[in-house]
Formats: sequence, structure tokens, C-alpha cells
Amino acid sequence: MKTVRDTGEFGLIRRLARALHARDKSVAVGIGDDCAALRSADPEKFLLLTCDPVVEGIHFLRGTDPRRVGAKAMARNLSDIAAMGGVPRWAVISIGVRPDTPVRDVEKLYAGLREMARRFGCAIVGGDTTHVAREPFVVVTVVGEVERKRVALRSGARVGDVVFVTGKLGGSLRSGKHLTFMPRVREARWLVENFSVHAMMDVSDGLASDLERLVESSRVGFDICADAVPANGSLRAALCDGEDFELAFTVAARDAAALERKWKSKFNLRLTRIGRVVRRRAVLLDGVLLAAKGYDHFAKH
Amino acid sequence: MKTVRDTGEFGLIRRLARALHARDKSVAVGIGDDCAALRSADPEKFLLLTCDPVVEGIHFLRGTDPRRVGAKAMARNLSDIAAMGGVPRWAVISIGVRPDTPVRDVEKLYAGLREMARRFGCAIVGGDTTHVAREPFVVVTVVGEVERKRVALRSGARVGDVVFVTGKLGGSLRSGKHLTFMPRVREARWLVENFSVHAMMDVSDGLASDLERLVESSRVGFDICADAVPANGSLRAALCDGEDFELAFTVAARDAAALERKWKSKFNLRLTRIGRVVRRRAVLLDGVLLAAKGYDHFAKH
Repeated sequence: MKTVRDTGEFGLIRRLARALHARDKSVAVGIGDDCAALRSADPEKFLLLTCDPVVEGIHFLRGTDPRRVGAKAMARNLSDIAAMGGVPRWAVISIGVRPDTPVRDVEKLYAGLREMARRFGCAIVGGDTTHVAREPFVVVTVVGEVERKRVALRSGARVGDVVFVTGKLGGSLRSGKHLTFMPRVREARWLVENFSVHAMMDVSDGLASDLERLVESSRVGFDICADAVPANGSLRAALCDGEDFELAFTVAARDAAALERKWKSKFNLRLTRIGRVVRRRAVLLDGVLLAAKGYDHFAKH
Repeated sequence: MKTVRDTGEFGLIRRLARALHARDKSVAVGIGDDCAALRSADPEKFLLLTCDPVVEGIHFLRGTDPRRVGAKAMARNLSDIAAMGGVPRWAVISIGVRPDTPVRDVEKLYAGLREMARRFGCAIVGGDTTHVAREPFVVVTVVGEVERKRVALRSGARVGDVVFVTGKLGGSLRSGKHLTFMPRVREARWLVENFSVHAMMDVSDGLASDLERLVESSRVGFDICADAVPANGSLRAALCDGEDFELAFTVAARDAAALERKWKSKFNLRLTRIGRVVRRRAVLLDGVLLAAKGYDHFAKH
């Protein structure tokens, strides 16, 4: 019998998504992007909806400062809102905790959630707690908003576009960045407010794997220049490690230079031109098909 | 050191809620009701937001038909939307599964989620999956809507109101109802569309415990008539078992008879007048202070 380990995370999501394909007219973008984009009362905006689990032993180790766990659980979701060019508004939280957990630790977890949410103007408005026997988890759901004309999807990359990434990639688990990263909400808002961003996503499963998602959604390819990839450590780490929570996006080639110039005067964060969008539907490294795979929660364990 | 077991679920939520108290003006109702009620673009409506976890070993046993687990995980959240008088619109789902789980079981889980959502017009628009080592979970978040003038809160009960409950209470775990219940979305909509519902909530932790929540929110008391409580089994079970997912609500005494009459011609579901709202801030059984406590995820395990 085929198990979840056999299909892997993406295979599983693909199978589930097929069955769920929403026919509801209010759903502008459903499964397969960083957030769902929904048509609500405001004709000029989409409501954004995203939800991400963080589990002990998978996304953090037992004994990790609960404040950092809370910050990470919130930041992952804010990163998804950022990836759509959106503004986070409200969050609800479900936690599973062991009964022998000190209340102080739960309060620290919430302090981490709250501080990260507040930093980006997101109000925590509810949730639920439950007992677990062994594996604590935190699931955060964030509702955001974005102007319909500004929403950045995975499906918009065009042949000839320039591909950018923010920050540096790789080594996030080793360096601890996966617990301390800042979601690129402000940077993403600035991008969609000032430029025509064709496609955007957050780099969470490793650049190689995430670009494959863009290939699927945009039906184009990506030719990445190996020397250009801003790596923390090896190129392999930069392509495959995951948990970077940086932005990858594409803009028309004619906008690239102005974007780089203005970015430099605006943000103290590295922005790197790493390649071009090409016709061949694949991820290429210096023109050669890239076989390396990104992080898969199921396949690796 | 004080642990989560010491404070119990409600004590914990109360502590966390105090720290989170949202000052955001968009939050009409935050932590402490069945859903958060949020002011979005539509001046006539609230957006409703709720999120509930379902964990193996706590909310269902290993080996339970995954389709029923999915249905329950969705129905719990729809029940929260119903408790506000709302209409469910969109859902996102986070699941944690063991790698050795047959893909067919995950597909069955999703079939249960999907069927229950579709029945009430709710579109599943996204989510995430993760690996867990031992304790699978499903966290569903539902976004709904309700007219601001029709929203039913926990805080609106008034002295002299008549208290109603739908269906029968108690024995839900033994009978299996906790896996097969139908959320009272249609009944709740009909109620808020046709009557002035002063306060409403869903009975999920046991009537005795849930009425205590109404005491806190409405700053009134409830005098329940023991003979009137519609029990599956003993009175104690009806008051304390939990996982009923029926509605408890109050209306002005002058509306009660008409409501009962019209309900009977509309629904094939029991509706019972179980008591009155009184001034003394307590839950009373035939005038006597009720000490029995409802289900508490932490205290009981």
C-alpha cells in the first residue's frame, strides 16, 4: 500500500489538491500558491488566507526557547502573506501542549507569537488549546489583504523576466536563522507598490524545489547562474536546505536596474539578481538541468 | 512550577487572553467567544474567524475511520460559525501525518473534510501538511460572515430570558455522536434571521461548563430546570460529558412561545426550553448552585 513516505509531501499535496479543486467563484486563487486569494465584499481587494503548522521534532527541537518557537510559527505565516504582496491583519492560533508543560513556557510561546504579530500590525484574535501526549505543535492561521491589482502570484512569471532573491540562502537550520528570521512583509509591500512584480513566492523548501513550484504555476523555466546565488555556505546548501523565508520574484528585464537602485537606497538587505526566466519548463543551473531536490518533510524522515 | 495540568484549559486560555487583549479597532469580538468577529470592508457584516484542533488520542482514537475524523474536524469549526449566527465561507487545513500512513487514509480524511464543508457551502482553499512522528492532528480554520445586526454573542443574555438547547445532550463519546454530528448552521441562521437571539454558543465542553462561559461573558446567571434537560442517559452526562455540538441560546421571554411553534414546523430537531436567565451570576440547577464541571482537556488527562 502506498504510504505518505512514498508520495512525499508535494505528491501528497498534489493528490489532495486535485480532489479539492474549488468551483466556488469567490476563490480567485486556491491551493497551490503561498496563500488563498478570496473575493470578499471589497471589489478592489483580495482576502488572503494561509495556515502553517510547526511541530516539535520537525520544525524545532525540544528545549528550544518557546519565545523563538512562537516567533517562528507566526513569522512563517507572515512570510506567506508577504509572498503575495499582502498586508497581514488577523491571526488565530491552535496549540497542542503536554500537560506537564510549565505555564511560563506557554506564556513565553505566546509572547513570541504576539511580538512577531505586532511588529507587522497583525492582531491575534483567537484560537484554541488542546492537550497532546507527546508532540507539541503550533498552528497559526493568518488573514491578510492585498489590492487585486497588486497581488503577486506564483503563476505570473514571463519568459525574459529577471529573477531576484532577497537575503542569503542555505544553512538556516545550522545557523539558527530558521528561528530568528524576519518575514519580508515590508520589502514585499514596497515591491508590489512600486513595481510590476510578475511572480513571487517565499523560499521555504529550498530554492531548487521552490523554483519547481514556480515552473509548475507559471509554465516557464528558470535558468539560474550558479555564481550569483547568495549562499550561506555551499551552493548545494543554498539550493536545497530550505527554511530560508526569503523572497524569490521576477520582474520584466526593463525594470530590473531601477529596482536594484531604489532597493539599495531603501533597504539594508541584500538583493541579488540570480537568473532569467526561460521557455524550457525546468530549473536550470547555468543552462544545465538541475536534479537537486529541496526539503521534503516526508521524504527525508 | 505551575504546569498546564494545574491551571486547566480554561485557566490557561484566560491567562493567555489577558496578555493578548487586542487593541486593534478592527476587532469587534476577540478571544472569549466562539469566533472572532472582525470589521472588514463591508460595513454591514463581520468576518468570523475560528480555528480548532483535533488530535489522535484526544479527539479520536487510532483506527477511527479517517473520513469521520475529517468530518468531525470540519464540523467542530462550522459549529463555532453557527454559534455566532454566521455563514461559513472558506476553510484552510493543516494536517500532521505519520510517514507510514497509507495515502488512501489521508485521501479519506480529506473526503470527510470536503463532504462536511460542501454540505454547508464552505470552500476548502488551502493548507499545509507536515510529518509527525507519533500524534497525527488536523487543524481546521474557517472564515465566515454574519450581518453585524444579527451576530449572536456570548455576552448578550439578559435577566428574564428563556434558555433553549437543541437536540439531546450527553453520551456523545459513547454513542459515537462526537464523530457524526451535524453542526447546527442552518438552525442558527434561521434563528438569527427570524428572532432576536440575545446570546448563543455551541455546547462543546458540557452544558454546565459552557453555561459558566455565558455567565462570565453576559454577567448574568442561569437557573436550569433539571427535569427539562434533554438527556442522552443521565442528567450528569447531559451536564458534563461535552462534545455535544448543540446550540444553547437565550431569547426574550415574550418571543419564546412563537419561536417554539415556528421551530416545530420548520425543523425535525428537538428544541427544549431548559431554564431562565437570572440575576445571580452562577449556574443553578433548580435554584441550587451547580458544582459539576464540564470537560477540560487538561484536567482530565
